Amino acid sequence: MKLTKEQIEEIRDQQSQIAQTKRVTVTELEKILYEAIPALDHGFVRVIDYMGDDTSIVQSARVSYGKGTKKVSTDSGLIKYLMRHWHSTPFEMCEIKYHIKLPIFIARQWIRHRTANVNEYSARYSILDKEFYLPTSENLAAQSISNRQGRGDVIEGEQAKEVLEILKNDAERTYSNYETMLNQKYDGSTIDENKKGLARELARMNLTLNTYTQWYWKTDLLNLMNFLRLRADHHAQYEIRVYADIMLDTLKRWVPITYDAFMDYRVGGTEVSAKGKIVIQKLLKGEEVNLDNSGLSKREWNELMEALEIKDRIV
Amino acid sequence: MKLTKEQIEEIRDQQSQIAQTKRVTVTELEKILYEAIPALDHGFVRVIDYMGDDTSIVQSARVSYGKGTKKVSTDSGLIKYLMRHWHSTPFEMCEIKYHIKLPIFIARQWIRHRTANVNEYSARYSILDKEFYLPTSENLAAQSISNRQGRGDVIEGEQAKEVLEILKNDAERTYSNYETMLNQKYDGSTIDENKKGLARELARMNLTLNTYTQWYWKTDLLNLMNFLRLRADHHAQYEIRVYADIMLDTLKRWVPITYDAFMDYRVGGTEVSAKGKIVIQKLLKGEEVNLDNSGLSKREWNELMEALEIKDRIV
Amino acid sequence: MKLTKEQIEEIRDQQSQIAQTKRVTVTELEKILYEAIPALDHGFVRVIDYMGDDTSIVQSARVSYGKGTKKVSTDSGLIKYLMRHWHSTPFEMCEIKYHIKLPIFIARQWIRHRTANVNEYSARYSILDKEFYLPTSENLAAQSISNRQGRGDVIEGEQAKEVLEILKNDAERTYSNYETMLNQKYDGSTIDENKKGLARELARMNLTLNTYTQWYWKTDLLNLMNFLRLRADHHAQYEIRVYADIMLDTLKRWVPITYDAFMDYRVGGTEVSAKGKIVIQKLLKGEEVNLDNSGLSKREWNELMEALEIKDRIV
Amino acid sequence: MKLTKEQIEEIRDQQSQIAQTKRVTVTELEKILYEAIPALDHGFVRVIDYMGDDTSIVQSARVSYGKGTKKVSTDSGLIKYLMRHWHSTPFEMCEIKYHIKLPIFIARQWIRHRTANVNEYSARYSILDKEFYLPTSENLAAQSISNRQGRGDVIEGEQAKEVLEILKNDAERTYSNYETMLNQKYDGSTIDENKKGLARELARMNLTLNTYTQWYWKTDLLNLMNFLRLRADHHAQYEIRVYADIMLDTLKRWVPITYDAFMDYRVGGTEVSAKGKIVIQKLLKGEEVNLDNSGLSKREWNELMEALEIKDRIV
Repeated sequence: MKLTKEQIEEIRDQQSQIAQTKRVTVTELEKILYEAIPALDHGFVRVIDYMGDDTSIVQSARVSYGKGTKKVSTDSGLIKYLMRHWHSTPFEMCEIKYHIKLPIFIARQWIRHRTANVNEYSARYSILDKEFYLPTSENLAAQSISNRQGRGDVIEGEQAKEVLEILKNDAERTYSNYETMLNQKYDGSTIDENKKGLARELARMNLTLNTYTQWYWKTDLLNLMNFLRLRADHHAQYEIRVYADIMLDTLKRWVPITYDAFMDYRVGGTEVSAKGKIVIQKLLKGEEVNLDNSGLSKREWNELMEALEIKDRIV
Repeated sequence: MKLTKEQIEEIRDQQSQIAQTKRVTVTELEKILYEAIPALDHGFVRVIDYMGDDTSIVQSARVSYGKGTKKVSTDSGLIKYLMRHWHSTPFEMCEIKYHIKLPIFIARQWIRHRTANVNEYSARYSILDKEFYLPTSENLAAQSISNRQGRGDVIEGEQAKEVLEILKNDAERTYSNYETMLNQKYDGSTIDENKKGLARELARMNLTLNTYTQWYWKTDLLNLMNFLRLRADHHAQYEIRVYADIMLDTLKRWVPITYDAFMDYRVGGTEVSAKGKIVIQKLLKGEEVNLDNSGLSKREWNELMEALEIKDRIV
Repeated sequence: MKLTKEQIEEIRDQQSQIAQTKRVTVTELEKILYEAIPALDHGFVRVIDYMGDDTSIVQSARVSYGKGTKKVSTDSGLIKYLMRHWHSTPFEMCEIKYHIKLPIFIARQWIRHRTANVNEYSARYSILDKEFYLPTSENLAAQSISNRQGRGDVIEGEQAKEVLEILKNDAERTYSNYETMLNQKYDGSTIDENKKGLARELARMNLTLNTYTQWYWKTDLLNLMNFLRLRADHHAQYEIRVYADIMLDTLKRWVPITYDAFMDYRVGGTEVSAKGKIVIQKLLKGEEVNLDNSGLSKREWNELMEALEIKDRIV
Repeated sequence: MKLTKEQIEEIRDQQSQIAQTKRVTVTELEKILYEAIPALDHGFVRVIDYMGDDTSIVQSARVSYGKGTKKVSTDSGLIKYLMRHWHSTPFEMCEIKYHIKLPIFIARQWIRHRTANVNEYSARYSILDKEFYLPTSENLAAQSISNRQGRGDVIEGEQAKEVLEILKNDAERTYSNYETMLNQKYDGSTIDENKKGLARELARMNLTLNTYTQWYWKTDLLNLMNFLRLRADHHAQYEIRVYADIMLDTLKRWVPITYDAFMDYRVGGTEVSAKGKIVIQKLLKGEEVNLDNSGLSKREWNELMEALEIKDRIV
């Protein structure tokens, strides 16, 4: 990630603005406010603003006149209770706003989470930066054989080189042709005074999907956790997980009690179906139970045995 | 509106908490933060928290690294442009949270605005306050004859007294019976040690719809304006307008540039249909146009003539 | 539930309208279309319209040109997979519309589910029916001692009679005073020709919360299941559960494969936290584990032991 | 647009399925159900399913037991009234589902409308079709000079040829390299038995933004109109307008009364600000008013004069 002098200046300006406020304020999050935390080769995550903290959840769950805190232990108990029982509205009372730079194909995955507010950099109005995502060699994964939607082994040697070459060349060529069609270089200079430039809203169609875009993205705490639960999961595509992992860190700084409850109940936990529950009950009673008499599909059976760490039962 | 000593203390505590923040901060709104602004006889509006200001709209419309402000005049021009052309997403980047106390029949109207976050005081969990809305005599309106959904003249004299008597007596009697069924007074004391109390979730059904409830209500700036546009309008029921008017004041403190654009384009403006546009064009050309050849219904014609202030054209 | 002759006629009219369509059509649901299924003493649930069936979920998950069905067994496998892995968007592709009559205090609980479309009968515009909910004696529950939000034993004998008397009398008196203030009987007749009626939007505030209202309520299949998961649960208030149970039946008629997956994974299943998973793993290995060394709270421990049906472990 | 034999067959199968239903049914829309209506060079719009018609709006606005229709003229009056006064919820009671094939850069614009349900063809799971959007020569617009977000004159001659050449070559080359990296041709055949294929979720990043994707898109009537109002407008990008225009036709078939009201009040109408209203009032009274004393910006003034068709006032 490389910022221009001007951008660095703008960020510094924001970081040096200090005001007094009566609002609840989170010291740990203020420490990294506005900072551009690098993600992938040219992307970043910046926390731009936030509203509320752990006590705000308690405050609105209780609809109290004051802070809603009695002591930290009570607050923590209530937040864990709310998380365990899927109470949603108190977590909606906190809000956070990010500035994110990310490759377009990841932006397309991200935007499927609709309960957030977004302002994206407009390629109808402006010219996109000359920056594309190129995976590092250890992330150059082959298609998984068993999972149509996943990755298998890393591609190495000659073939890896070839793939990276393709990605780099195609991105550079299409970007350079983007400039030709616009009749304008990225720095704003005109290429040929005697030519018109193609409309920006048309020229952009020539860019490849690893071109970087950026947006302001704002969401409430509940929907942030819904996003992170799916996107920080090991089934998520690596490239979006990089962003989700950074955002998990910002979550921890912002609302540490909620973060702990989230990791315990949502991220680290597991769900057991009605049939799965009966399997566990039988196992605990020492009764014989196996794939055939369980009523589970092979896939479900294996997922359950993995969760229970009974490796010799996996079929 | 009467707060308990404890509530007054809790509010003061919050108002005296001062922290330093790098976030954008709005001095005019900070001045009234946490304050209980009276509404109707027992209700209030409190601003509990906020995120962003006028510059935040500009910042995210431009997806800029810094404050997004060049100079106030440019910002103002951009905000007016966004408002005029119904750009919605930049206005979603600001957020505000209120604590509201209001009669249940108004809460039921309010909740129809779904794009907000709400935590209401739970009458399954707790006992509701002994407070009911009683209209002042100048708000005791008769049913409108012309508008099935509106108010006509004020009811006066003997009948007014009778109506107020009914409202007061019925609210008091049903509340007192609510306590009897709960076997508990509002202050928490048990009425009869030898009896059980009816479940709170059942007993509440005996309360009248003018009983006060309260909630935390959080929304973004766009949806706040959508709410105010409908509920501060003179067609809105008086009792919800009282709240909307107070909130219009908080809007003005919070985002003064946006407030001006909102008043000009949304509140004070008018919409003209395709057919209405032709009527205006003809009028300006001095052509004869009347209800019959306009293609408008009588109601539409009158609404248009009122908007144009041509009183002698109203039919 | 008692319908007027006119209402019965209107329903019959709809049921006898038969058209040909190329849309996917569900015979089992058509059988009960428009029918008023009784709920509580005066309420009902009516299915008014629907869009899609089980195959529509498969069709859009595959983004296929045709029906999306290969064979029922494949469809069923895919739907179970989608449910297990919390895929949400394919379930949003089916839609259902209900006409519901229900007491206002239940309507207020219901409306907290915001991702639905609602048109409620307007008490600003019209006069509400003279119908109130009165619990049957076996549903007259005392407040739970252990759970601030739940019910305990049934109230019986003299006290039960007294409670029912209060509910009935207060509802009748407040309704009768509602008529007096409106200067109009429910049947439309004017009470006193020399008086004005109070505006309907004001008079309604005198009604008690067990008065019935009604609305059209439309939602997609995903959000219907979210609603049913919470409201058909045994923690839900009895009065809303009555509606949820009826709607579960309509779900079964409409999308039987999805219904089965929903019952297995959502309703009958259980969630286990990260800490809870370790407890199960230890139990299966025969290691000693108890409340103290589990890291769980007493409440969590008991919930887990209940789910696993190890009664002697409950503390 | 070219469909495979299999796709044509699948569509025919759906079109020949005839069922009896008691639901409201719209003959005009049934006529084109499932049909692939061509859009741009390889895209299409298909109506897959729908729920409700004009009478459904009336039915739920009235919360009636039956069809909600008295006579067509009354229905039409009510629908016009609802549209004029921005009543939103009755229009949410109708739902429609489309299958759309469109270029990715248009899909990215489209998805900004969040209040819809979407299932997109997964390029993590499957290989994208070898189809890219190439503008026809009359749509090869230069960047507008006056409007940073719009189009100017058409680019012609040598330069036009050059631009089309670039777009075609780059799309073909990047697609061919996509196949190379996948080690698989679009038809499914493996290229080199001794090589692994790059994961599909990675390889897709090499595609250009004019590559076609497809999705199922479902929305309610209110949000469909919000979409069409913006995207069928002449300020919208041509490529999305093509889709919006086709969908306007489907709207007309589906709910003809609503369509008329929509065209009159939303599409053909205009909004006038508070200041603009005063300008019109003065003009009608014959008072002198000009840009300087109007309080309007030059841009606003011109927009107003254009709407009023007073050309000699444009400055």
